[in-house]
Parts: sequence; C-alpha cells; structure tokens
Amino acid sequence: MKEISKSILERIQLLARSRGLDIKAILVGSAARNTWLAGDHDLDIFLGVPEGSDLGAALQLARDAAPVHEEKYAEHAYVHAFVDGFEVDLVPCYRVLDASMLKSAVDRTPFHTKYIAGRIAGLEDDVLLLKQFMKGIGVYGSELKVGGFSGYLTELLVLCYGSFSDVLLAASSWRPGEVIDLEGHGRREHHDPLVVVDPVDPSRNVAAALTLDRMFQFVAASRCFLRHPAMDFFFPPAVKPLSDEELLVHIDERGSALILIGFQAPDVVEDVLFPQLRKAEDAVKALLERSGFSLLRSDAGSYGDKAFLLFELDVWKLPSVSRRMGPPVWEAEHLSRFLAAHPHVMSGPYIEDGRAVVELPRRYISARDLLAREINNLSLGRHLSEAVRRGHNIYVGEELTSIKERDFRIFMARYLKAETRIC
Amino acid sequence: MKEISKSILERIQLLARSRGLDIKAILVGSAARNTWLAGDHDLDIFLGVPEGSDLGAALQLARDAAPVHEEKYAEHAYVHAFVDGFEVDLVPCYRVLDASMLKSAVDRTPFHTKYIAGRIAGLEDDVLLLKQFMKGIGVYGSELKVGGFSGYLTELLVLCYGSFSDVLLAASSWRPGEVIDLEGHGRREHHDPLVVVDPVDPSRNVAAALTLDRMFQFVAASRCFLRHPAMDFFFPPAVKPLSDEELLVHIDERGSALILIGFQAPDVVEDVLFPQLRKAEDAVKALLERSGFSLLRSDAGSYGDKAFLLFELDVWKLPSVSRRMGPPVWEAEHLSRFLAAHPHVMSGPYIEDGRAVVELPRRYISARDLLAREINNLSLGRHLSEAVRRGHNIYVGEELTSIKERDFRIFMARYLKAETRIC
Repeated sequence: MKEISKSILERIQLLARSRGLDIKAILVGSAARNTWLAGDHDLDIFLGVPEGSDLGAALQLARDAAPVHEEKYAEHAYVHAFVDGFEVDLVPCYRVLDASMLKSAVDRTPFHTKYIAGRIAGLEDDVLLLKQFMKGIGVYGSELKVGGFSGYLTELLVLCYGSFSDVLLAASSWRPGEVIDLEGHGRREHHDPLVVVDPVDPSRNVAAALTLDRMFQFVAASRCFLRHPAMDFFFPPAVKPLSDEELLVHIDERGSALILIGFQAPDVVEDVLFPQLRKAEDAVKALLERSGFSLLRSDAGSYGDKAFLLFELDVWKLPSVSRRMGPPVWEAEHLSRFLAAHPHVMSGPYIEDGRAVVELPRRYISARDLLAREINNLSLGRHLSEAVRRGHNIYVGEELTSIKERDFRIFMARYLKAETRIC
Repeated sequence: MKEISKSILERIQLLARSRGLDIKAILVGSAARNTWLAGDHDLDIFLGVPEGSDLGAALQLARDAAPVHEEKYAEHAYVHAFVDGFEVDLVPCYRVLDASMLKSAVDRTPFHTKYIAGRIAGLEDDVLLLKQFMKGIGVYGSELKVGGFSGYLTELLVLCYGSFSDVLLAASSWRPGEVIDLEGHGRREHHDPLVVVDPVDPSRNVAAALTLDRMFQFVAASRCFLRHPAMDFFFPPAVKPLSDEELLVHIDERGSALILIGFQAPDVVEDVLFPQLRKAEDAVKALLERSGFSLLRSDAGSYGDKAFLLFELDVWKLPSVSRRMGPPVWEAEHLSRFLAAHPHVMSGPYIEDGRAVVELPRRYISARDLLAREINNLSLGRHLSEAVRRGHNIYVGEELTSIKERDFRIFMARYLKAETRIC
C-alpha cells in the first residue's frame, strides 16, 4: 500500500509540473497515519491548489493520472480510481494556512492528518484494535447508513483516553451529551449525543454523525467486552441467510403482521438513499399509526438495485368501527364544529370524561389496502417518492419468501434476531 | 296521594300516642313541597324522635303502622311499605334544632323540606318540568347507578335561576367546577364538577353525587332543547330490545371483539352493586390494557338477578411476540436487572432511542383465555369478587345472542347506539 501510494503521488507531481500547475499531492486519511485497517475505505490523496485558484485544473489532472476511474461528487467533484487492486480517491482541495479558514469539508482533512500524525506514534495498534472492535459490533463508519464512529473519531478517542481498553472503560459510563475537548477550546454548544470538539476546528463536532443508538451500542458492547473479552467482538461469525423454511417458521412463531414495500432503488449514493429511506419509513409509520395500527418494529434496507421498507404490525385487520374523540362539551364552539364534521356515525355522539365521542366507520380495515391506496400520496423524500410511484410491490407475511436475494435473507436474519451485545 | 299520606300520618300519630311515645311523623320530600312527579320515588315519611333517645321504638312503630312492608338499610334501618298502590318509606330520625347539628344524612331532609316549601310557591311547575326533562334525557336521580341530579338539587336550581328555561339557559354555559351558593355561605372547597352549597348545611355539596358526564349530558341537552324544543326531550320513545338478528347484524357491522362476563348479582342494593361493577369494569380494563389489548369501549349492567361486565376490543387475538421496553443503556444498574429478568427472548435485546428493548413471547394471545384464566385473581370489590368466583360465564361475539332477557337486549340497543343529545 505504501509503494502504491508513493508511486501515485510521484506520477501526479510529475504531471502537474509538466503542465506548470502549482498543485501539491498529499496522502491523507488513515493510510498517512499508520492506522489503516485492511478493508477500510482505502487511499485518500488530496490535490491541494492555492487559495483563490480554480479546482478544475486539479480535477483534470486527477482524471489523467488515473486512466481507470469514475467521477463522484461530495461537496465538489472528485475522482475515484482503481490502481493495482486499491481504490483511491483523488480529491481536489484548497491549501489553506489555518483550518478555521476552510472553504469546504475536504479541505479540513490534511489538518486532521497533521494533528493525528504528530501525536499517534506508539498508539497505532490501539487505534487498529478500536476500529476493528467497532467494525465487529457494527458501529464503525460515519456514513449515514451506519451513523457510527469515523476513523478520525476513533483516533481522537485513543489520544484522549490513552489506550484501546481505556477507551472502552471510559465509554462504559458515558451518558448522552458527553463532551470530549482535547484542546479545551470548544466554542459552540452542540446538542448531539456525543460531542468531540475537533482539535483543528473548535466549532465542529467530530461525532456529529453518530446517532444515539450507535453510541450506546458501543457503550453496551464495551461493558460486555470488559467483563468477558472474546475474539468474536472483533470478528463476529457471519450471519447466515434464512432459507424459505426458516423464514416461514419465524413468521409463524411471531404471529405478527410483517409487511414490506419493495421498489427499484433510485440511482443515488447510500448517503443520499439512507436518510430518505429513514424519512420514508417514518412517514409510513405515521400513516399506519394514525390509521389505528400499532407497530411492533420497522426497518428499511437495500439489496442489489432494490430498496425496501419493512413494517411489523400487531395485526393485519382492525374493526370497522373506530373512535374519534372530540372536544370537551363546555367548549361549545369547538363542539359544534366537531359534530358538524361527523354527520354520519356508527354510534354516538356520547360523552366520556366530559368530551364528545363519536364512533365512525374506519376508512381502511386492512393494512395492505391502506398502504396500497395511500403510499403514493405520502411525501417520502424527493428520490424515493419518484421511485415508489414508478412501481412498487407490497409483500405481506409469507409472501416475503418470494424475495430470494441473499442480502435480503441476511437482512431478515438480522432483523428477526435483532441481537445487540448489551451489558 | 295527599289523602293517603294524610291517613298514614294520622295512623302513626295515633299509634305513637297509644304507646306513650314522643314521635312526630312528618311528610318530607317532593310530596310535601308540591313537586312530586308521578313515578317518582313516592312518599317519604320521617318519624322524628327527640335527640338522645332510641330510634328502635320508632322503627317498631313503623313496622306496626304498615303491615305490608320490607325492611331496608341506609345509614339506619327503615321500613319500605306498600299502601294503597303507593310505595312509602317510613324513616326513623332525630329531631334536631339546627341542620348543623345533624347526626345522620336523613335527619337533614326535614330541613330541606322546610327550606324549599317556604320559597317554591309559584315555581312548582318549573320544578316538575325540570325533573321530567332530566328524567327524559337520563340524568335524573342521585343514586350511584345514575350519578345524576337529585330532586332537591332540581328545586335549588329553579330557586337559583328563577324558571325551568332559565335553568337550561344558565346550564348551557356551565363549565366544570361551577359553584352555586344561594345563601352565599359556602364554607368548604369542593372538587366536584358542580358545587351547589346546601342552604341548610353550608359544608355540604348537594351535587356531590353528580358525575362529570351526567352534568355535561344535561348541559348538552339544554343547548339542544333551547335551539329546537320538542316534547320527546321529556318523553323519549321507548328503546326496543334487539332481536337475535339485529344483534348479530350490529356485531358483524362493527367488526370489533365484544366480550361479556356474566354472573349472579350479589344480593345488595343498587347503590352498593353499581360502584362495585364500575370498579370491576376498571380492573378488567386495566388487565386487558396491560396485556396489550386496546379497548374501544366498556360498560357494566344488570338484568333480573344477573350482573355483567361488557368489553369491546379492537381484536380477539394479539401476536405471539410482544415488546418490552427497558431502561436507558446509561442506567447500568437498572439495565442489568432488566436483562437478568428476561433471559429468554424471542428477539433482542436491542437498543431503540437509547433504551434496551426485548421481544418476548406473549403470555396470553387471546382475550378470552386471558379473562378465563385471570378474572378470579383480580380484585373486583368485596361482593363482586365473591360472586364472580362462585361462577361466571364468558360470552364472546355472537355468543351474546344466547342471553335472551329483554332488559339485556334493551341495554345492548342503548350501548350500540350510544346516542346522547349533544349540541
């Protein structure tokens, strides 16, 4: 990996000089700080141009330096290349003198590398242990699908507490709102579950992407590990996809109402897809709940080029009759409006605890009918609304077995077991 | 009625004199104040003995004065007699000089009669209208089964507002906590929905037995009547008992889960029975709800020598799996206890919104099984617990048609329509 990165850096530098460009190529990320974990996001090379100049020439340089590549887009465009079996990101950025003068998020990375590289010597193995531990328990990665710990965050935690096991020990008693400020220079109030003030940019929370549940998944697993350390925290056994029969047995045993909405995933990166899936999940949950269905659990996921929302209800069907609670009888005006709005009742109006109540025919008795008829009227996020409207399938109960893809069956195995290490 | 009461009073007075007893027999209640409504609770005659003397001789006198009678018991024993087609209560009590020196509730009645009789002249018809209106809309009677307005309360309302229609007009804008104090001498804070300070006993709320729902049933009906006065407020059409077929159609249309627990009513007066039925209804409701069933409505009633509790659920059956929410992961001690308490899970533990959650097999999937197995373990009130333990039947859905009694079918007709006049 070192050789490859060295040769790429040299090639870029040569090409830049031949074009008379003032560009400095530098290796950043974990590879530059000896905390690179095999299987990690591979090599990050930044092409720094002077402030005020154009990033376009650097982008063109990246394209030419790596003939096999695709272009991607985060805050600016960058090149994702394949070089001798490694994935390499070539990212144009500005060379700023001070992290507080940053123009975009990627410009910050070289400062992170500098900060860590200067302090991490001797602690690299602790970082690697922590990263693999987090990977094993499923909380590693700040991408929105995971909502976990970034590589930089793990490095700061090791710097802060001094070793792998000291991080776990400290985490065991974290509470929501925990603040870690290595340089003691935090400038802003954050309302995130964990706040780790960025040593190179005091207004930024390095743990901003970490969700409450991932944070406490780490806390809970840390306690378990300290009590009973074991290798399979780092390398858990692979989850086996469920066979048709296993899936049917689970569905039958639970006796609940599983319902899945599947559709073609929109052509966007996971960091765009997953927030929209969560938003869509919430919108459908709200629809189900306001229609009277009570939810056991819900989830969302993707496999291949498909995405899906999964809901587990107590029951498929509700009674035809439903209660609608009105205003207190002493609020005469509200009461009149409520009564006028419900001229056709099955029972009532009657008075309960001082309020008017009517019982009305329910619009949708079956959860499947409700979703089939209303899903297209929900606001599911820009890309998802489109994707769902173009076409979707609703699978209920045993029909889930008609989805054969291995990744989906692994998802279902995880969903049904739903086991997290908690101590 | 006047003749009958006069002849009874004379007979008692004669008998008392012949026994050398110092007893004054007086007619009290609505009959004594010209506000007696045909069908009302008939004649109340009080047998006043001097303070400090024994009530026993007065009770014996009452027995001998009315050969056809039965004995009842409220605060003391009294005689309920049948004389020439009238029901007459002969009630021993103390003659006290001032209502504030009362020894028991019945001693107060002669003071009420005196207070009303001296002021009601010219307003008797308004009282009769108000009583019949309240009877027609189902809020007349302070017995616990009704929880409505007593006769004395209607008289005070007419005295306060001046006429039948002025009572309705004032009631139209009542709010909970309304206070009426004719003599301006209220001495205590009451927390009842309506407070009417007793003119003869300033610490007492005449409307103490009135429930919030009966109060606002009257408020709502008053508004309706003022908008569209009609005779059937006073004399509503009789409710027809449901036939088997009608009952089946309703049950089918609602699609809900009706479940009835029927048993021999304990041999107690309605004022003892109904509070216990309400308590039992609440206890079973709580059992159903904590077992995961959601209730549409519930009620309780009696017919003949039977009593019953009725529950209407959304569904008969719940899934085998049920969620149990645990403490937040950061409360390590609570968490340990929670996890230790649930060693056998169907799914989990997992973390949701920072809390540990497990999914467990549900103890009772069917509402019928739950009630059949747990009803005897509930605390249903002294008399009811005994009665239910001695024997009960559980009827679900269409099985309700096996209860043929006319009063039950009228109850079901009312329950299913559940219509109250509300404006």
